Amino acid sequence: MTDTSENWFQTCVNALTDGRDQRVWSVIVSLFGDLARTPGDRISGPLMNAIIGPIGIRPEAIRVALHRLRNDGWLTSEREGRTGFYALTPGGLKESEAASPRIYARDEPSPETWHLIILEPMATTQRTAQEKRLIREGRLLVAPGALLGRGEPGNGKSDGFILSGRLENVPQWLREQVSKPELAEAYAGLVSSLRTVSDVLDLGYPATALQVATLRTLIVHNWRRILLAHPDLPPEFFVDGWQGAMCRKQVMQLLDRLERPAPNTLQIAQQAA
Amino acid sequence: MTDTSENWFQTCVNALTDGRDQRVWSVIVSLFGDLARTPGDRISGPLMNAIIGPIGIRPEAIRVALHRLRNDGWLTSEREGRTGFYALTPGGLKESEAASPRIYARDEPSPETWHLIILEPMATTQRTAQEKRLIREGRLLVAPGALLGRGEPGNGKSDGFILSGRLENVPQWLREQVSKPELAEAYAGLVSSLRTVSDVLDLGYPATALQVATLRTLIVHNWRRILLAHPDLPPEFFVDGWQGAMCRKQVMQLLDRLERPAPNTLQIAQQAA
Repeated sequence: MTDTSENWFQTCVNALTDGRDQRVWSVIVSLFGDLARTPGDRISGPLMNAIIGPIGIRPEAIRVALHRLRNDGWLTSEREGRTGFYALTPGGLKESEAASPRIYARDEPSPETWHLIILEPMATTQRTAQEKRLIREGRLLVAPGALLGRGEPGNGKSDGFILSGRLENVPQWLREQVSKPELAEAYAGLVSSLRTVSDVLDLGYPATALQVATLRTLIVHNWRRILLAHPDLPPEFFVDGWQGAMCRKQVMQLLDRLERPAPNTLQIAQQAA
Repeated sequence: MTDTSENWFQTCVNALTDGRDQRVWSVIVSLFGDLARTPGDRISGPLMNAIIGPIGIRPEAIRVALHRLRNDGWLTSEREGRTGFYALTPGGLKESEAASPRIYARDEPSPETWHLIILEPMATTQRTAQEKRLIREGRLLVAPGALLGRGEPGNGKSDGFILSGRLENVPQWLREQVSKPELAEAYAGLVSSLRTVSDVLDLGYPATALQVATLRTLIVHNWRRILLAHPDLPPEFFVDGWQGAMCRKQVMQLLDRLERPAPNTLQIAQQAA
């Protein structure tokens, strides 16, 4: 590895980490979600250090996070000699699978059918509890007691008045309400960082499998954190200048360029390093 | 006219008036809406007295009401010799025409398409003004800021979020909210009165054209006042035991039995009396 080669990689890592709060357990969730989501996939402790160490995360912090993820039932571990191996639990696999269609979708969502639930007028605290449940299921709170969901209402029917059909008007006030300034800023920042990564990759330095794994983990992690912080809505729900669609395009282009290495390939690369 | 004949008629009139507050101007609006809604139709002052006099409305009350209806731009008048003739103004004709499809509909409404408007969250007084406008246009206030309308939203689009489509769930709380107890009571009372009228008509006494006009005016008047006091909604929006559909059936059967006399026929009958 030449100095120049290390420089290109560090420039990309810096672009993807600077000014962003990276919680270790969350980065590990992203790593497994992207690289080890197939039942049977395992990541060893040393391989994990090799992939996320370059981000500036220290082994002790990784150990603490792994402890937490095991306690939460997200990861299991087994030892082979002095090496620990980690894998997603069935529950962790299920949640990763559930999130991945949205994370890896190449196109903006464009559902034809929607449903709107109107809750019974009631005291605010009582209503808020119902709203939270319906929001957790992926619905958008349009106004107090009014929740919009994609597709048919399904069998999770509430006791609300429900209409299903197509959008007739998405007013500016709702677009402004949905397009939270902190998310707009986060998208704009990530678009800028991804452009830097893309420009550096254009220089043509060859990336090792481990470097690819590090970059993919960071890209998916940053993308996932912003994307899942708002409901899955088509562009017409966002204000002009919203960079969600542009960000998705860049993420997909970079993931295509940085082809996903198999866990075994990574394990061999780590042992050879 | 025999005593018995007068008795049957008075029994019907009593059944249709007892315990109901009959505002004279409103009765006259019903009379024109039912008997003189075709451009060119006129009703003379004496004919009006002959039709609604038996209800117990005195000529002075009619004069006051006619004055008001002229001032409101609902009626015009012209004199021929000593007789005044009254007709709906173009505006009065238009409003009568607009109400008649609902008043004379033989079947309960069953729209396939609906639209739901969600107003921008705002201060209550400001929102109430918008709600009032949308309710006046025939929409149902489902919850604060949420209004349901029949069919497509049309070009009277508000700045609300709008979904159009089909009903998925009409919960019990909304049915109870829509089925106002005073309207339930009014329907039950009218159903009972109409049954009395129907039973009396079954006795077979011949009705004069003027008697038919009086009874039609009263039936349409009572029906219209309850019907137009609530939005035009299918039976699934009302609680079990709601008698709106039964009342409509009885109204239509009676109007079929009491065939509408032409204004000229009535004029001749009145002059001969």
